Amino acid sequence: MLPLVMRSPPVQRLRRLIARSSARRIEERFVIEGSLLLNEARTAGWSVEAVYGDGDGNDDSDGRLALAPGLLERISDCVTPQGPLAVVERRTAPLESLREATFVVVLVDVRDPGNAGTILRSAEAAGADGLVACDGCVDIFAPKTVRASAGALFHVPIVAGGDPAEVLAALAGFGIVTLATDAHTGTSYTAADLTRRIAVILGNEANGLDSTVMVDEYITIAQMGRTESLNVSMAAVVIAFEAARQRRDAAS
Amino acid sequence: MLPLVMRSPPVQRLRRLIARSSARRIEERFVIEGSLLLNEARTAGWSVEAVYGDGDGNDDSDGRLALAPGLLERISDCVTPQGPLAVVERRTAPLESLREATFVVVLVDVRDPGNAGTILRSAEAAGADGLVACDGCVDIFAPKTVRASAGALFHVPIVAGGDPAEVLAALAGFGIVTLATDAHTGTSYTAADLTRRIAVILGNEANGLDSTVMVDEYITIAQMGRTESLNVSMAAVVIAFEAARQRRDAAS
Repeated sequence: MLPLVMRSPPVQRLRRLIARSSARRIEERFVIEGSLLLNEARTAGWSVEAVYGDGDGNDDSDGRLALAPGLLERISDCVTPQGPLAVVERRTAPLESLREATFVVVLVDVRDPGNAGTILRSAEAAGADGLVACDGCVDIFAPKTVRASAGALFHVPIVAGGDPAEVLAALAGFGIVTLATDAHTGTSYTAADLTRRIAVILGNEANGLDSTVMVDEYITIAQMGRTESLNVSMAAVVIAFEAARQRRDAAS
Repeated sequence: MLPLVMRSPPVQRLRRLIARSSARRIEERFVIEGSLLLNEARTAGWSVEAVYGDGDGNDDSDGRLALAPGLLERISDCVTPQGPLAVVERRTAPLESLREATFVVVLVDVRDPGNAGTILRSAEAAGADGLVACDGCVDIFAPKTVRASAGALFHVPIVAGGDPAEVLAALAGFGIVTLATDAHTGTSYTAADLTRRIAVILGNEANGLDSTVMVDEYITIAQMGRTESLNVSMAAVVIAFEAARQRRDAAS
């Protein structure tokens, strides 16, 4: 019986960690796919617990465990599997770690893993101190989010945020100005002073930011085409890079 | 027998127009999915040739042809079908129409439909005069590109570009400065004068712009994280909005 018992658990566990955010939370582990992400995780010093290959000999064999042929593809979340699967220790930062932050991105009810990953990517590229994912958001450690982040996940501190109102109150307590976008009535995002210590609060893809979430200021991204032609992740890119631009200008 | 004969051809044709860019080119038609895109197409004055619903009575019935129940889902390219399918007349603009353009986006070997759609979206939002898709790019009228463009397709003139070198030569002939991104050695994109008449040339997702494609100037997007953490569509968003910002500043 022992071989069967030995073989089954990793497959079950991989499937569970890929499919369920509750499993990722309870085990404090998540699964990444492919050599690129695996290298990023290691380079950034994240703890890689196990690596599973398909034993076809194409992989380097750094302590990799072989799964039965074809099994990797069936477990993988990817349409086109990207190589090995690895179980990595989930790592989050406490909100308190953002006490001295100058640029924070807060996700409130962002549901699409592609958007969350892209936002994380732009946060990294623009030098954000951290990303807070409040309750109700897509899990940052879900396979699709990790993939869309293109490794940015390993370089930007992630705070598991809880209740949005509490997060915003804590950020205000740190002396951080909270900003949200409004399609029409805010200050132009290029006229707003983004060199201050700011947190950009991003809401739901379809409904925007819940009106019960109170922020300090609203900014508006002027658009030439139809209004609201930008989605939440494009808006995040625009604001993050405008903040970086203003900060470089102020420093020079 | 008539209903059977009547039912088959549109299904074959829809499948062909969804799956094959050659069919879209030959028939000069493409397929859009869902009421939102259908409304955008009509509002923007595009010619809608036929609309197919699933005859469940939930749709408005503006000349809509009913397909057998369940057929719509099976034809649809979407994981979650978005409602009716419509056959729309493909509409492109000649390169010549950009003779007076002040802001053009040129795709060279952009392969991912999501990226092409997002670039189109940012081009619209930033007020581009047109988008040129050169040979080798993903088809702008492919269902995934159309969906990712969120209707921007109907608002930005699309030029079927042909050979990149010829396109760039023609744009230069119009007095337009061609710009491409470089990860390191270009002028900072905020220091470059984007109020000039410019064309932003975007290359392949994995390999960048082919080195045989000669542009006038290179610009660099300063990044705080790892280099090249932005993908091509995010870079397009950043440049397009910096151009819009500089132009607003110059006009005020």
